[in-house]
Amino acid sequence: MPDIPAGPSHRITIRLEIDNRPGQFAKVATVIGDLGGNLGAVDIVSVGKGFLIRDLTIDTRGEDHAANIVAAVKKIQGIKIRNVSDRVFLLHLGGKITVQNKIPVNTRDALSMAYTPGVARVCRAIAEDRSAVYNLTIKRNTVGIVTDGTAVLGLGDIGPEAAMPVMEGKAMLFKEFGDVDAFPICLKTKETEEIIRIVEAISPGFGGINLEDISAPRCFEIEERLKERLDIPVFHDDQHGTAVVVSAALINAMKLVHKTMSEIKVVILGVGAAGVACTKMMMNMGVRHIIGVDRAGIVYQGREKGMNVAKQWFAENTNHENLQGSIVDAAKGADVFLGLSGPNTFPLEALKLMARDPVVFALANPDPEISPEEAAGHCRIMATGRSDYPNQINNVLCFPGIFRGALNVQASDINEEMKVAAARAIADTIPVGELTEEYIIPSVFDRRVFKSVANAVAKAAIETGVAKRKRKQKE
Amino acid sequence: MPDIPAGPSHRITIRLEIDNRPGQFAKVATVIGDLGGNLGAVDIVSVGKGFLIRDLTIDTRGEDHAANIVAAVKKIQGIKIRNVSDRVFLLHLGGKITVQNKIPVNTRDALSMAYTPGVARVCRAIAEDRSAVYNLTIKRNTVGIVTDGTAVLGLGDIGPEAAMPVMEGKAMLFKEFGDVDAFPICLKTKETEEIIRIVEAISPGFGGINLEDISAPRCFEIEERLKERLDIPVFHDDQHGTAVVVSAALINAMKLVHKTMSEIKVVILGVGAAGVACTKMMMNMGVRHIIGVDRAGIVYQGREKGMNVAKQWFAENTNHENLQGSIVDAAKGADVFLGLSGPNTFPLEALKLMARDPVVFALANPDPEISPEEAAGHCRIMATGRSDYPNQINNVLCFPGIFRGALNVQASDINEEMKVAAARAIADTIPVGELTEEYIIPSVFDRRVFKSVANAVAKAAIETGVAKRKRKQKE
Repeated sequence: MPDIPAGPSHRITIRLEIDNRPGQFAKVATVIGDLGGNLGAVDIVSVGKGFLIRDLTIDTRGEDHAANIVAAVKKIQGIKIRNVSDRVFLLHLGGKITVQNKIPVNTRDALSMAYTPGVARVCRAIAEDRSAVYNLTIKRNTVGIVTDGTAVLGLGDIGPEAAMPVMEGKAMLFKEFGDVDAFPICLKTKETEEIIRIVEAISPGFGGINLEDISAPRCFEIEERLKERLDIPVFHDDQHGTAVVVSAALINAMKLVHKTMSEIKVVILGVGAAGVACTKMMMNMGVRHIIGVDRAGIVYQGREKGMNVAKQWFAENTNHENLQGSIVDAAKGADVFLGLSGPNTFPLEALKLMARDPVVFALANPDPEISPEEAAGHCRIMATGRSDYPNQINNVLCFPGIFRGALNVQASDINEEMKVAAARAIADTIPVGELTEEYIIPSVFDRRVFKSVANAVAKAAIETGVAKRKRKQKE
Repeated sequence: MPDIPAGPSHRITIRLEIDNRPGQFAKVATVIGDLGGNLGAVDIVSVGKGFLIRDLTIDTRGEDHAANIVAAVKKIQGIKIRNVSDRVFLLHLGGKITVQNKIPVNTRDALSMAYTPGVARVCRAIAEDRSAVYNLTIKRNTVGIVTDGTAVLGLGDIGPEAAMPVMEGKAMLFKEFGDVDAFPICLKTKETEEIIRIVEAISPGFGGINLEDISAPRCFEIEERLKERLDIPVFHDDQHGTAVVVSAALINAMKLVHKTMSEIKVVILGVGAAGVACTKMMMNMGVRHIIGVDRAGIVYQGREKGMNVAKQWFAENTNHENLQGSIVDAAKGADVFLGLSGPNTFPLEALKLMARDPVVFALANPDPEISPEEAAGHCRIMATGRSDYPNQINNVLCFPGIFRGALNVQASDINEEMKVAAARAIADTIPVGELTEEYIIPSVFDRRVFKSVANAVAKAAIETGVAKRKRKQKE
């Protein structure tokens, strides 16, 4: 397993009292550096009699590493630690989003227009024509981020309260990258029927629903049933967001290795919600040979061990030659490996059996199915879910733009055509001439992506007849 | 019925093309004035060859009145109407609130702290100690405004979509006056049990629930059951907000007429949700003689006509002498009249039968139970729900401060003591020396009110043991 590098997700700030003597600070810096801490900003807070108060910001590899560094600094003579604060926790104090008024209501006039008595006329207008709710309320720009906290990041079933920081973070990304107002709704229930009823009941004020971190197989039924029942888009990002970005990466990878979708063989390790969604989407784009693999080996029709709804779907819709065996057997002659599982689950010996110009998307986070270091020299193109390697496959590239596009045309659904349009738009952000093995997917900070995705998605919505308005209302 | 004055809740802007000749604009102004329109801002938009484009902002009395004015202006020679826009509707385009990020997520560092991978540590901290959700998420400052749209303003059951503008307006007031982040949840269901389950299920991310515009008698059971089941405050503003502000007005009125709570007789016209809440609160403050009246007359034990849960409560808990008859019979010798019903339902002959120094709170909106003009000279103190008469009894004085106080100490409930503390705080904003018949209740724009209410409510929460923290976290 490769070392996790020191980074801002484990950043601490130490407030020190240092004797004001030459060489004192150098001692501190040396101790931190020797332990592998990454010393960043050094601020002087105040100057006392014979001592200085300094704030040192240090990126560490994790909580234990941070504790080691603090302990070592503490031992240096002439140093007192006044305070240790954790930047990530500081950033989360009081939450990360806020509700703001578009106009102040600090005058009698404003009050009587935004609230009673003026608001009554607006209510009546909507009561008479319900579709006016799009124009006269926040509905047209607002997405509910709904979770039950059962499959949060890699942490599993941590409950609705503990899921809140992720949902708030998601809301931030919606705003920053899509100018979408999103609000977290974390549910204290895991019952499929109840979740469906609740989302349906709260839907009038939302223009779309982003389902998030709901565990399989419930997430399939919840999404499917809600799509049928609601006239606003319902999108399970863990499934389809991943599928869209993987597809975008695949489109560009195929351009580099000069293979077509219909001829390649794809091996997917990890056949949960995201695996099914990626497979369906690849099939929509013309991929015909897909093999799913889990801990028990290749999924095939007739297998009995460890089956569930998702795996049953795999057995019925992929692996047409009914191959059996391990990941090594599956990898033989494969053109693309897609990892959606856990750390170090794709052995080098399997990679070595792949066809010419192997394409490896190892998306387990933080530790990929095979490390880029180990795979180096054995594959042509490598992508991971991490930001510290080239080719990061990140859902942030997809969901803000896809909802922006859907909201712009008041789409009633996010359908397959819209998802494919989003994947192509992401891929096409990089002109063919700029494509390289280390640049098949744009950066999340490439602002062209979101506009391009939004426009493509809106166009696809209009073309497939799910747009309630034909003109976008917001740039 | 008194004329509704022209006001900003029916404000229109007319864009005119006016021949550039002396006296042309005066003609327009005269026509508007003659019809009773209130000409406000006059802006020059552009100047053409021989004509001017002007925007005229006009307060009108209503939609018909506005249409009449537009038609009359249209007839003036040398005038072309280019556009008529309705300021209230313009203000509502796209809704009135927005979700904002507290920090930008436009760098890799910010992304990895606010979202993955950094956020995972914050999630784990909450999973280990659920109470940390208050510090590390928006919960500590966030209130859900929940309605089913069945009793919106005076409009009745207009549905969840049409209720949105009111709930957004409410969220604005929460923010403007209490610095509370509030978000509207408009439910597409009217079933008591389902509403209870939904609110319970969505509660993890909220620090409080404000129930709004839910019709009686369901609102009683929904509030009562939710108060039992949730460990965050649940407050039905239509009931308790009104009760708090009425109580505040009553406290100050009694100071002026030199009567004590225990000796006065109060007649309440309209015995719905707000009537029950006002009665309970007045009883908590020592009032002993209360009589409820509805369209069928005085509510008494044994009455059979038109009874329901609220009226049954009135029959059992008020009118101890079991008086029967009409509002005129009820008013005989009463010290206070409280109207929570409809327009012009309190006849002058009844008012004339009240005890010395009659106090009249006629809160029906927009037309009170008796108009201030008609009551003038026959009562000592008059209050209404309107902003264009003295003594406006407005819930805005209460709910932002009461939730601010409750959130500051992470209260698990808003109990009777907290409500009484809020009423006294509102009343005490006006020093005794400044009290007059026309100034018994502070203005909603008197910013002292909210701080004072918040502090009093937080103190009462701590004293009654419902505060999860003893120190307020926010000024």
